[in-house]
Amino acid sequence: MDLIQNLIALLGESAVLRSQQDLAGHVTDWRGRYQGQAQCVVFPSTTAQVAAVVQLCHAAQVPVVAQGGNTSLCEGAIPRADLPETVVINLGRMRQVRAVDPANNSMVVDAGCVLQTVQETARSHGRLYPVSLGAEGSCQIGGNIATNAGGTGVLRYGNTRENVLGLEVVLPDGRIWEGLYGLRKNNTGFDIKHLFIGSEGTLGIITGATLKLHPLPTARAMAWLAVESPQAAIDMLARFQSRCSASLSAFEMVNDVQLNIVLNHVADRRAPLSPSYPWHVLVELTDTCDEALLSAALEETLSAAAEEGMLLDAAIATNGKQQADWWEVRHSVSEGNKKAGIGINTDPAVPLSAIPAFITQATAAAHRIVPGAPIIIVAHLGDGNVHFIPQLQFAQWQALSPAEQDQLSHSVKQAVNEVACALAGTFSAEHGIGQVLTDEMALFKHAVELDLMHAIKRAIDPQQRFNPGRLLPPTP
Amino acid sequence: MDLIQNLIALLGESAVLRSQQDLAGHVTDWRGRYQGQAQCVVFPSTTAQVAAVVQLCHAAQVPVVAQGGNTSLCEGAIPRADLPETVVINLGRMRQVRAVDPANNSMVVDAGCVLQTVQETARSHGRLYPVSLGAEGSCQIGGNIATNAGGTGVLRYGNTRENVLGLEVVLPDGRIWEGLYGLRKNNTGFDIKHLFIGSEGTLGIITGATLKLHPLPTARAMAWLAVESPQAAIDMLARFQSRCSASLSAFEMVNDVQLNIVLNHVADRRAPLSPSYPWHVLVELTDTCDEALLSAALEETLSAAAEEGMLLDAAIATNGKQQADWWEVRHSVSEGNKKAGIGINTDPAVPLSAIPAFITQATAAAHRIVPGAPIIIVAHLGDGNVHFIPQLQFAQWQALSPAEQDQLSHSVKQAVNEVACALAGTFSAEHGIGQVLTDEMALFKHAVELDLMHAIKRAIDPQQRFNPGRLLPPTP
Repeated sequence: MDLIQNLIALLGESAVLRSQQDLAGHVTDWRGRYQGQAQCVVFPSTTAQVAAVVQLCHAAQVPVVAQGGNTSLCEGAIPRADLPETVVINLGRMRQVRAVDPANNSMVVDAGCVLQTVQETARSHGRLYPVSLGAEGSCQIGGNIATNAGGTGVLRYGNTRENVLGLEVVLPDGRIWEGLYGLRKNNTGFDIKHLFIGSEGTLGIITGATLKLHPLPTARAMAWLAVESPQAAIDMLARFQSRCSASLSAFEMVNDVQLNIVLNHVADRRAPLSPSYPWHVLVELTDTCDEALLSAALEETLSAAAEEGMLLDAAIATNGKQQADWWEVRHSVSEGNKKAGIGINTDPAVPLSAIPAFITQATAAAHRIVPGAPIIIVAHLGDGNVHFIPQLQFAQWQALSPAEQDQLSHSVKQAVNEVACALAGTFSAEHGIGQVLTDEMALFKHAVELDLMHAIKRAIDPQQRFNPGRLLPPTP
Repeated sequence: MDLIQNLIALLGESAVLRSQQDLAGHVTDWRGRYQGQAQCVVFPSTTAQVAAVVQLCHAAQVPVVAQGGNTSLCEGAIPRADLPETVVINLGRMRQVRAVDPANNSMVVDAGCVLQTVQETARSHGRLYPVSLGAEGSCQIGGNIATNAGGTGVLRYGNTRENVLGLEVVLPDGRIWEGLYGLRKNNTGFDIKHLFIGSEGTLGIITGATLKLHPLPTARAMAWLAVESPQAAIDMLARFQSRCSASLSAFEMVNDVQLNIVLNHVADRRAPLSPSYPWHVLVELTDTCDEALLSAALEETLSAAAEEGMLLDAAIATNGKQQADWWEVRHSVSEGNKKAGIGINTDPAVPLSAIPAFITQATAAAHRIVPGAPIIIVAHLGDGNVHFIPQLQFAQWQALSPAEQDQLSHSVKQAVNEVACALAGTFSAEHGIGQVLTDEMALFKHAVELDLMHAIKRAIDPQQRFNPGRLLPPTP
């Protein structure tokens, strides 16, 4: 029997799709930028089926690509165009919440659970699963873990990595690592789960996970600040951290360029302060205490800062509607930027102390390539993660050939990333590598670190069949 | 030139010790239970010297053991008795604080910095380095990281692993991995640092680290509770977590046996509640808010619980002296247990929901071997980490031959650890493996997980020269 027949015998006809039409949504990334190829996409329903599929692929010596919600921004979960024999394993039918243990603040889920389902299940048990991001209605927890997804909860709760206690993983030879630990402490050898978290399907297929849950916050307070400079925003962050400690749950910064784009291009968005101020910060406190205590902490911190001249202006949200409206402004940046022009997106992070230098130097570097271009800045400031986005006008962009567009985009991104890396930063803070940043891996990562990664890849996937060509640059 | 001459040429005479007298403190564990051998112990002062030493050892094909403060409870940082050619690399001369970055809440330190120096340096910059443990006056940060040290700050701040942002590591071939990132977000390939954290010197020698700092708490509130059962303690923990969230910084439980031992055997120790209550809990809240707010949260939580009959009794500390005194009671358990008899120590963790079953079943299992022995219990309850300690009388113990003592100790520990592992727990929550628990690794870890660990070991240390025979069981 050939591989396809074996797969059908294992999973049934309806779980092995082969027509170009059925494959389309699974070999193309969601933004339609890359078109890969595969001989089939399969939909196993259990971990044992995933293992059996991988064993068949291993025997047939074909590449394997694991796929969750296909929401990657780096085209990481779709097969290559030059390996048509690839089998795509989609985890979407594995969507059981296996167990919730409120006393242990943990839950065990299938990899195919949609993030929003995970959040809602935790909430229904009076707990918080804190990872939150734009694609939460369709991205899957297995993909979140495989890419160490970030989002808006990182300042307080960490990335996805910090919220995983254990994993179940199918290895490239089809064996299953049963590592669904639900423990806060376990010093028994190398902590294997951290290898798979963020490995983008290159070392194993995550089929299940034990997630860490948190107390559910019941109170929220929010302020909108206008400040003179990024340094002033960083000084305010330090104030909030030393006064409000773990209650500080968001500290997001935009510049005037970004704010004006949202107000001008997205309907019904209003800012509480004049968009002519140069820098704006959204501060959020959440906790399990009385809301009045949070509001008091917020007001005290702002009063003291205002007296010392650290603020240009500030507003405090007076009700939940206002809080939601202000978050809407923040969440509308992608929509606004898309309508306003062509943004050349980047995803660097630097130490917080280096953010002012990064913004100054990156602006100069970008302007050497695109003189005078407006610079959109939207930062998860508390995490040191600055989306630095030089903007071109539609007409400017359309005057370029596709090759010139690629070239321009590439050189701007590289110039920005060079600045970040020279300041001890990174060129991919939260989006990962996929296939779009493997050149940057070769360019910016230390040779010794790349060697270690290649050695680990060879040790766990010696035939290099799991998600080939993704994450790691080719071996030198 | 032979290896010793090369080492002297590199480091100078005073940094290469060879006499039995000079070696004594470096080849014997601090409790005097194991006597190893080495041809020398060397004291490099820089990362480059560590790398050069490792290159010489690599060329000479001799084993290498990295050593920090030599405070391991698992005899993990001393050389083997059967490999006299071993070179011990002691990091004690590398003790510079390289940089503190308060705005980024991070600091970069040499591996040989004593933990207390790290804590004090952070504090002098208005920040907290939260890892705290008994040996903090002599243990070194490199050893803390290599063993993923736990301690009393885990409930709120996590283990050492969660407080490391970056590492500098000398690899078995003498190359240096420069991974001193100071970032909260960095999704650029496998997160290599997590392999070295907790690897006990078997993959690389940590020479420097970027540590995560936290806001310095300024307020503290503390209560002592008496409850009917471990389940009642777990129910109270859930109450405190949902009411006090991240302010909850300690939730330590002892049973009446443990408390009476401390009160009877350690001078000047007093408990605020009668030691005839069966279970006692020390609860601590810390935060950056006003102390009155913490006290109010503590009192509210206790009042509600008392009304619902969840408590047998409770006391709230009224001043800092009382808080310190109560912590002294908790910190005196080792001293008390040593004076009261022979305790057979264990270090398991289980999911919190399994703690009552663990205590019941482990008691039964221990009593099958030592019928009627008192069971001492001292638990980092919030972490699921229960030190379960069957106690023998001195006379009982001394009536046994050394071989019988070993046999008894071994069988009791194994019986307890079997119960923990059957309840999805672990046999080493915070102490690590060293050389004393490698048999348990073979016994309790899944074969696939052990295979992955061996594959990683081979990939990074193919000649198996770094801390041989530690952490991992022999390859099957």
